[in-house]
Amino acid sequence: MTHYTKGEQTRARVIREARELIIANGFKGTSISQIIDHTGVKKGALYFHFANKDELGYSILQDARDEFFGFLERSLAGDSPLQKVHSFLSAILDQQKNQHFVGGCLFGNTALEMSDSNERFGALILSVFTGWIDRLAGLLEEARQGGELDRGTNPLLLAKTMVAAIEGGIMMARLSKNRSDLEDCISQLRLLLH
Amino acid sequence: MTHYTKGEQTRARVIREARELIIANGFKGTSISQIIDHTGVKKGALYFHFANKDELGYSILQDARDEFFGFLERSLAGDSPLQKVHSFLSAILDQQKNQHFVGGCLFGNTALEMSDSNERFGALILSVFTGWIDRLAGLLEEARQGGELDRGTNPLLLAKTMVAAIEGGIMMARLSKNRSDLEDCISQLRLLLH
Repeated sequence: MTHYTKGEQTRARVIREARELIIANGFKGTSISQIIDHTGVKKGALYFHFANKDELGYSILQDARDEFFGFLERSLAGDSPLQKVHSFLSAILDQQKNQHFVGGCLFGNTALEMSDSNERFGALILSVFTGWIDRLAGLLEEARQGGELDRGTNPLLLAKTMVAAIEGGIMMARLSKNRSDLEDCISQLRLLLH
Repeated sequence: MTHYTKGEQTRARVIREARELIIANGFKGTSISQIIDHTGVKKGALYFHFANKDELGYSILQDARDEFFGFLERSLAGDSPLQKVHSFLSAILDQQKNQHFVGGCLFGNTALEMSDSNERFGALILSVFTGWIDRLAGLLEEARQGGELDRGTNPLLLAKTMVAAIEGGIMMARLSKNRSDLEDCISQLRLLLH
């Protein structure tokens, strides 16, 4: 069992609660004073844990990255590599349904808002997409070698397209509040897994 | 030949030049005073044409929508419906290459930044995605009926997934500055057009 100090607990709570604000209003659209109001943290305590807004933003992205890769691994249920990819597709759809398609994907949102202007944020977000694509591509390659997937499939191209279509589908479903936008993309992607 | 008054020319110029700022910094990250500095327009003239920042933002989206649908129609070159879809895929890749994958897609960016917080922006952006999907779905349906595309293809699902993967691919290429991210998605989408 891990014991956290009060300071560590505060830091973790600020990261999670500030993330909600940033998902709702974007990074640039969220001010330090809004974060203080929303979390109830004292200004001195905030600056003790995070030197500035960029440091807080980076910590939020790191935390979200760790959470996402945990989610990804837990989602990969099934007896075969292809079954694991199908399970992941179900899990991501459920996750977006559970949040009623509000908020979208923090990485996609922040990528579009910040990637031209903040290289450090951009590099971290890119590592999320790269790691995600590589994990799926590895499973697709296993599936291909095991005869579950057509021999002519290019695992990396397919994994990249899956991640791109999921990110685009999340964006469209968030816009339309219509679950079928992401569902349709995922149904189409499943058709490629044979 | 259409004649524009000086006022109309100013309005059109402000719309185009303010768009560059919004693509670089986001809507919330762009202030009225930055727009005045960047365009050199007088404050009184700006407020004569646009009641407030939201009105300017909406006009920018309308202008970008009209430009995009013009681009889409011009891109649909070829003798068959499927050939037109292939030409469109080439055109969108060329367009992103020409802007060196910087800036991405204004609609995608603004959708992710604003769609939970500004319903009017969200509705306009949604109409862009819907119109784009419908146009491609119509061509895919023609291709299906003409025997160019597998009879089992669902044109709407495929068109939606194409648009989602293009938007996601543009986002990833913007992040990585690596053209192959969008190229790979487009190559994979082409494999579905048979």
